Amino acid sequence: MTTRELNDFLTLTGPGTPMGNLFRRYWIPALLSVEIPEPDSPPVRVKLLSERLVAFRDSQGRIGLMDEFCAHRGVSLWFGRNEEGGLRCPYHGWKYDVAGRCIEVPSEPDESAFCQKIKLKSYPCVELGDVIWTYMGPPEIKPPLPRFEWCAVPQASRFVSKRTQECNYLQAMEGGIDSAHVSFLHRYDLRSDSLHASKGAELTRGTDVRFDVIETAGGMVIGVRRPAGPGELYWRITQWIMPFHTMIPPYGDNALNGHAFVPTDDENCMSWCFTHHPTRALTDHELEVMRNGGGIHVTLIPGTFRPVVNKDNDYLMDRTAQKANRTYCGVKGIAMQDAAIQESMGPIQDRSKENLTTTDNGVIMARIRLRKAALAAAEGKPVDGLDPETHAVRSASIVLPEGANFFDAARDTLKVRTGVEHTSV
Amino acid sequence: MTTRELNDFLTLTGPGTPMGNLFRRYWIPALLSVEIPEPDSPPVRVKLLSERLVAFRDSQGRIGLMDEFCAHRGVSLWFGRNEEGGLRCPYHGWKYDVAGRCIEVPSEPDESAFCQKIKLKSYPCVELGDVIWTYMGPPEIKPPLPRFEWCAVPQASRFVSKRTQECNYLQAMEGGIDSAHVSFLHRYDLRSDSLHASKGAELTRGTDVRFDVIETAGGMVIGVRRPAGPGELYWRITQWIMPFHTMIPPYGDNALNGHAFVPTDDENCMSWCFTHHPTRALTDHELEVMRNGGGIHVTLIPGTFRPVVNKDNDYLMDRTAQKANRTYCGVKGIAMQDAAIQESMGPIQDRSKENLTTTDNGVIMARIRLRKAALAAAEGKPVDGLDPETHAVRSASIVLPEGANFFDAARDTLKVRTGVEHTSV
Amino acid sequence: MTTRELNDFLTLTGPGTPMGNLFRRYWIPALLSVEIPEPDSPPVRVKLLSERLVAFRDSQGRIGLMDEFCAHRGVSLWFGRNEEGGLRCPYHGWKYDVAGRCIEVPSEPDESAFCQKIKLKSYPCVELGDVIWTYMGPPEIKPPLPRFEWCAVPQASRFVSKRTQECNYLQAMEGGIDSAHVSFLHRYDLRSDSLHASKGAELTRGTDVRFDVIETAGGMVIGVRRPAGPGELYWRITQWIMPFHTMIPPYGDNALNGHAFVPTDDENCMSWCFTHHPTRALTDHELEVMRNGGGIHVTLIPGTFRPVVNKDNDYLMDRTAQKANRTYCGVKGIAMQDAAIQESMGPIQDRSKENLTTTDNGVIMARIRLRKAALAAAEGKPVDGLDPETHAVRSASIVLPEGANFFDAARDTLKVRTGVEHTSV
Repeated sequence: MTTRELNDFLTLTGPGTPMGNLFRRYWIPALLSVEIPEPDSPPVRVKLLSERLVAFRDSQGRIGLMDEFCAHRGVSLWFGRNEEGGLRCPYHGWKYDVAGRCIEVPSEPDESAFCQKIKLKSYPCVELGDVIWTYMGPPEIKPPLPRFEWCAVPQASRFVSKRTQECNYLQAMEGGIDSAHVSFLHRYDLRSDSLHASKGAELTRGTDVRFDVIETAGGMVIGVRRPAGPGELYWRITQWIMPFHTMIPPYGDNALNGHAFVPTDDENCMSWCFTHHPTRALTDHELEVMRNGGGIHVTLIPGTFRPVVNKDNDYLMDRTAQKANRTYCGVKGIAMQDAAIQESMGPIQDRSKENLTTTDNGVIMARIRLRKAALAAAEGKPVDGLDPETHAVRSASIVLPEGANFFDAARDTLKVRTGVEHTSV
Repeated sequence: MTTRELNDFLTLTGPGTPMGNLFRRYWIPALLSVEIPEPDSPPVRVKLLSERLVAFRDSQGRIGLMDEFCAHRGVSLWFGRNEEGGLRCPYHGWKYDVAGRCIEVPSEPDESAFCQKIKLKSYPCVELGDVIWTYMGPPEIKPPLPRFEWCAVPQASRFVSKRTQECNYLQAMEGGIDSAHVSFLHRYDLRSDSLHASKGAELTRGTDVRFDVIETAGGMVIGVRRPAGPGELYWRITQWIMPFHTMIPPYGDNALNGHAFVPTDDENCMSWCFTHHPTRALTDHELEVMRNGGGIHVTLIPGTFRPVVNKDNDYLMDRTAQKANRTYCGVKGIAMQDAAIQESMGPIQDRSKENLTTTDNGVIMARIRLRKAALAAAEGKPVDGLDPETHAVRSASIVLPEGANFFDAARDTLKVRTGVEHTSV
Repeated sequence: MTTRELNDFLTLTGPGTPMGNLFRRYWIPALLSVEIPEPDSPPVRVKLLSERLVAFRDSQGRIGLMDEFCAHRGVSLWFGRNEEGGLRCPYHGWKYDVAGRCIEVPSEPDESAFCQKIKLKSYPCVELGDVIWTYMGPPEIKPPLPRFEWCAVPQASRFVSKRTQECNYLQAMEGGIDSAHVSFLHRYDLRSDSLHASKGAELTRGTDVRFDVIETAGGMVIGVRRPAGPGELYWRITQWIMPFHTMIPPYGDNALNGHAFVPTDDENCMSWCFTHHPTRALTDHELEVMRNGGGIHVTLIPGTFRPVVNKDNDYLMDRTAQKANRTYCGVKGIAMQDAAIQESMGPIQDRSKENLTTTDNGVIMARIRLRKAALAAAEGKPVDGLDPETHAVRSASIVLPEGANFFDAARDTLKVRTGVEHTSV
């Protein structure tokens, strides 16, 4: 039973909150590399864990991510001039380097020590996998860099997108963990979307489905089994890596897909979408489908990261398509089906009204792990998911003999093995 | 004097409020029958007394009105699939019948008792007069069905519409009770709108108007008299039936009109508009006028119940028409004049600043009756307006000899008499 | 250091606040004369210091500014009929004169004393300089009329506009006091906008600029000096007159410019823009430029006072123009640069996070003066800026010998001298 207090504990991530402090222990996807494509390109606004920040790339290509507002009189540095090694406030010309240090206050004499006292809150950044990651926690415990496979493959093997979602990160992430909904919410799309169609076992529904959840060092794996051929079971295996990464099981020849659900503020999150293939470049067909909002990706309103299909237009609900079994919930596209359903729960789902069942074991376990980790972080103890080794995992779909322990039997397929294709049927 | 406390008492109708508890003793217009036109048609969202609900018609044509959100993980059932005798949540396929009972949880074994424990809050519904009514109170004291004449006449004799209004129900309803404003706000429309034009006595203004308010078993009647021929008075008689029904006096040959002002939440209400003729079908002319937003009806934004003319466009204020005495307040159409004026008071009018006068006696009496009934309901005592006999009344316009008590003289005309036309001059 | 308490003290101006009480001691620009152009023209809504008011001009041309809502049942008098010496509520015909006195309640007998008891809150108004000014304070201490030069010159010598700004008045006004930002924020516009181009000394930047702030009876003058010819300094002198008037220094042959920053509510203000020439009519060129949003004026959304360029469209940020040094902050136009920067600080800037420097002396002094005056007002003591003599001042730009005290040397040029041109180089 999730009380309202526990719900707050799990969902609120602003400065000073227990879960916020936990999230600040990890490297966090902050923005796409292409958002600040080149030295001295325009600064962009970034909101992370309820903090308003500005990101820019300086003349040397270094990345800055710092307080959005000038330390002088509070002007947004989004209006700033990015030039000659720093970002300059347009009001009185104060200039900051990528570490948030004030390096020029034009009104003060050059010999003045004034600007040495001025420093904006600033967070270190790294670029990995076409994404700019940041670390917002105490410098002395900054963890090693993330080692997700999608970050490591050649750029041609990867497609990354992000979209805003108008709800708390937790209900979005729980959708990513929750394999059970696929057979319902996405039922008719698994055939129609070429990036999800499987040549292998069909998803079936009902009481023949079983869920096994196994805790791992960095999070957990969730195995869902369905009847396959005689004496065989078809397993779909999802990864969850602390604190907000999920990897969904692949279909047939298709690439691997994963998400990160990063809190923007308590009532909004950024849904990051990662597609990659471990051993080959993505095909033109795959890229075209994804650029057109297929697979786990969506079509965005130009100049924004908001989906064209959204709450304000009732997700372009199509009752005819729903009735005709072309979509299960009337919304088109796997990603927007998830978003619509999750946003419909309200900005922050009231979990005190839930009724959980056996298929929610993954969701329950994730909440327990997050809570434990937040409590550990509060006491200065180690937390899981910081070790890059725990990131080097894969999801899988596989047929195994009845009676096999999926985690033991599929152990190798759940690890990143460079040069070895993923397991998908 | 209406203190702020009393204002809250009278205006707030959410769960647990005294006035909310009172309203939950009555059958309430919830939605139009055509909103869920046929078995297995799409579910619709309904908000009533600050409760978010979903309505649907099952395969057998039975109507369900229940909590909008699935008991499992809180998804809106508006996205639900209405099929085979129930509404199915699109997330994991949980299914509910019209009583809100969970009848299938696909992940649980068939023999499981799990879903028998799951039940959504649900309210009984009936269809009367092309309207779906619901009862949101304790089952053991459910009253008999409403018996308003507009519900009972043949469909061809009736025209029903509804429109959202962006203010508390009480200030909308007080406009319906308040005959005194007609000679001002609607002055120039009573001639130009064929459904209100009277061949009889002209409305006059000023000090020649008198108001008599008489309490009845189900509410009250308000008689407004103006000078007519020598030794005669022209009476316009309004009905108010507990808790939110009004019937406005007719003009000449025209049909009867009434309203119900149903709280959506504390700052919004649904203005229901009922036109009917007791003894004949409505004419093509009448229907065409009403469909085009004439009489008490308005033109709506397609796909919504929001008027095209609304707060966001300043009600298409036309100062030229106001100056030229084509409209009194610059807004076109009787219904939107009422809505504009009532919404201009703010989401909830602050009645502590009012200065009431003799023509407000009806309004004052209605507040007293509502307050008394809410206090009675809180003590488990009977409340007025539940007896269907009290619904079987009519408004009237009539010329009576000077000195006559209008209530005695017009007693018969104020009752529903099947097959007998209403009284209107 | 501005604590949060002091920030509240300085920024909140609603009824009963210390700063609100101070502002209510002064004549305040309420609306443009052309908003209510002639007798019996339509009433308009006016919000001042968080009070919702309605303004109208009666049949005799007298101006009324009073509570927006009818004393009867709270209807907005914006829907009112302005006719025959008063504004009539459209609901029941109650009528008010320009002093807010109820002069007719149609439902009450003529001999009734009822309407004599009804009076709406109402504020006296005067017209000066194409602007309707009001006084919202205690009648017994109403000050003499304002004597700003722009009010006194012939209409042909004056151009007045106003625009809404989506932030607290104080951060807008501080921009008007703050000469230091001109060399940065407006750098590239001082050449391109013909109403600001100077034939004289160029603005330079950096450590050669010095600020002198001198307190005056009505506020202060801020002198900014930059190197000019040998042995000379170029001074730009700004006036601030209590509580919210600023006069910015002129350029070359151009006219004088000033502002008033009047609180609408705590998170919005009206930026009034005054251009005038002391000794000649404005030229067709000047008028055309200003009507097209040049100089200190902006282009407005038709039918509103909201700028076309605003927060919702990110001020039409043009990064190419910014990069190419056509604008400093990417926003076009001097006035909208100020507005964008000031609004970017948030609805009410959190001054507890500021880091002020020597060039902020004017801003600091204004805060001190406002605080002192508000404390004096609270004790019933005299406050500065009420004496019309203190309004009769000018800004200036002037070249003075090195070593001269600018205030003494420019003393004459800082006063209004009828028939004598202002000093501008």
